[in-house]
Amino acid sequence: MENFNFHVTTDIRFGKDRLDELPTVLNEFGKRVLIVYGGGSIKKNGLYDKVANELKENGNTVFELAGVEPNPRVTTVEKGAEICRQEKVDVILAIGGGSVIDAAKVIAAAAFYQGSAWDLVLERKGFAGPALPLVTILTLAATGSEMNTNAVITNWKTKEKLGTAGPSMLPKASFLDPQNTFTVNQYQTAAGSADIMSHLIENYFNKTEGTDVQDFVAEGIMRAVIKNCPIALKYPDDYDARANLMWASSLALNGLTGNGKQGSWSCHAIEHELSAFYDITHGIGLAIITPRWMEYVLNEQTAGKLAQFARNVFGVEESVDRMAARMGIQKLYDYFKACKIPMTLPEVGIDDEKFSLMAKQAVAHSSIDKNGYVPLDEAAVEEILRQSLVERNFE
Amino acid sequence: MENFNFHVTTDIRFGKDRLDELPTVLNEFGKRVLIVYGGGSIKKNGLYDKVANELKENGNTVFELAGVEPNPRVTTVEKGAEICRQEKVDVILAIGGGSVIDAAKVIAAAAFYQGSAWDLVLERKGFAGPALPLVTILTLAATGSEMNTNAVITNWKTKEKLGTAGPSMLPKASFLDPQNTFTVNQYQTAAGSADIMSHLIENYFNKTEGTDVQDFVAEGIMRAVIKNCPIALKYPDDYDARANLMWASSLALNGLTGNGKQGSWSCHAIEHELSAFYDITHGIGLAIITPRWMEYVLNEQTAGKLAQFARNVFGVEESVDRMAARMGIQKLYDYFKACKIPMTLPEVGIDDEKFSLMAKQAVAHSSIDKNGYVPLDEAAVEEILRQSLVERNFE
Repeated sequence: MENFNFHVTTDIRFGKDRLDELPTVLNEFGKRVLIVYGGGSIKKNGLYDKVANELKENGNTVFELAGVEPNPRVTTVEKGAEICRQEKVDVILAIGGGSVIDAAKVIAAAAFYQGSAWDLVLERKGFAGPALPLVTILTLAATGSEMNTNAVITNWKTKEKLGTAGPSMLPKASFLDPQNTFTVNQYQTAAGSADIMSHLIENYFNKTEGTDVQDFVAEGIMRAVIKNCPIALKYPDDYDARANLMWASSLALNGLTGNGKQGSWSCHAIEHELSAFYDITHGIGLAIITPRWMEYVLNEQTAGKLAQFARNVFGVEESVDRMAARMGIQKLYDYFKACKIPMTLPEVGIDDEKFSLMAKQAVAHSSIDKNGYVPLDEAAVEEILRQSLVERNFE
Repeated sequence: MENFNFHVTTDIRFGKDRLDELPTVLNEFGKRVLIVYGGGSIKKNGLYDKVANELKENGNTVFELAGVEPNPRVTTVEKGAEICRQEKVDVILAIGGGSVIDAAKVIAAAAFYQGSAWDLVLERKGFAGPALPLVTILTLAATGSEMNTNAVITNWKTKEKLGTAGPSMLPKASFLDPQNTFTVNQYQTAAGSADIMSHLIENYFNKTEGTDVQDFVAEGIMRAVIKNCPIALKYPDDYDARANLMWASSLALNGLTGNGKQGSWSCHAIEHELSAFYDITHGIGLAIITPRWMEYVLNEQTAGKLAQFARNVFGVEESVDRMAARMGIQKLYDYFKACKIPMTLPEVGIDDEKFSLMAKQAVAHSSIDKNGYVPLDEAAVEEILRQSLVERNFE
């Protein structure tokens, strides 16, 4: 196990009907609030009105940035930062899923930043500057952004989708009410769950030895997702299923399953290029890429861990590692299919036209060629993309 | 799943040789430091000298409270609080295991408290007042006190061992260097691991439904303990084994596996009386009580969860729940025995003389008769104690 820090100070308020606590939480930071949200689903399901009512009764001065995109644009971030500066905003309230929260994080930091928001994202060693306090109300179980310091922003001009992170961007408080995900449709529920699975898988397959706690915890959270996602798909207002997916999303990427380890994430590096070039749903891209990546990296060194995944997550009983590994990959693929996720690239409108360009960028924007679980060069990424063109059988 | 808060702000510095970070951490709070420690093992293994050296170079004014007992006494707490008041201490540095950290927590709170330290402990609804900042250097993987708000204090006069808790008692930072546990002997290593297992088990067997994330995470941490404790017993300086036990201890009782649930802990309620009357090692008492408690509570309603424990933690393959449950209990018992834990009360010097008195107190000091996983009255506690007099076979 490697040395690590764990310092996740977000005040999580998990559960039903706790918005009456929102004024107390916000008042700690000030009265001028910027609400950041997305396409307006919160107006349809009543959440917007509930929040607006709490803020009105609390005497807040409210500003709004609506229309944050699913892969949030740096242009939107600039707009938000400008409001913060102009209106002397005290605190940002993000209401939405990972995209909204990610945008809000970079808005919070860009408000104080000398330079463009894209320059801030390009500070690849991480962002060390200050940020406005951020409070979130989560409406989608997926990215874990509600309990970590990360944000991913897309520059549509340069076709780049890049991550940034910094301690000041950690949400001060996050309201996690599973009821706010009852209206998430099947496709987004499945995509969000695939995103959670991917975070756990990326942390799990790692070269650092001796991380049983992290690994066995990740296996447990994976099993919780695999059990509860199908329930949520069938019964969208099953509270416990939604609650388990929501808490899984936060724990999958708050350091718990990744700390004490080294190495860079492979499937995310590849998927970020798919999203940057084709604007597809992040979780769907991950679900498509992951089984192909697993098959590509399966070798004598990795068979043991892939077999452990198959046995401990999917209950595979095969005793030969390589065979168990293949059965586990197949089970993951079948699980995603059962969640009605389109499992080939053409189904989401992607052909091989930009494979070589995307492969080049995936390597350039990450360190997967050096620090991947199995190092991946451009040819390897292209091969994984090619395997994603058609339906597969891995056994 | 029940509503819950998760707000664990302790700054965890996990890993090898990080004491050079100690001055920066302490300086945030002030220069006058009270060091609290136990029987002096830290003087033998060199840790005391390393800390003293860091503090000297940092220009700290240092006060000391040595000799904190394994079941820390309220009289010791009073002594520490008096030093804090007299010497205007800025920050407390606890170096030790759970007992030392627990004592330090209540010292930190008692320093500001109007009334005796025992009155503070008796505030059964939890302690809401302020406390001096506390930094810890953990030397034993066991109680999880390094990352939670709880403390257990013993009043030797009244033969009471009671818990208290309060947000201000949460350590500001904890240094978790697995190397500091290399010198922990076999008995204490096994006892500490049993304590971790017990925290996970107490959280796991709970009446709240729909807590898969918490439960599957608990199963994972249990598997990590069961795998790594025997390695640490055989190879005391196996870094990864010690690291897994250490991180397991923090995660077992920081809310992760217990939040979103209701109900009171049964085995701890019973064991606290054993320790209060006989001053035995807490983890040993828990190891003895737990399998007997499991057998006692096994019934039609509980068989499913006990079978889940058997299957997911110990890999039991039996399909009939009640039989699987018994096999799981046996495996837990055998595991403790394999760790060389004395598994009967007479082996730790306890006969039936005070069973009825301890049973009475166990019920009086807790709510196990109302909120236990299976409610336990005095007769039930006595029966569990009686079953702990002799070796058992549960299958």
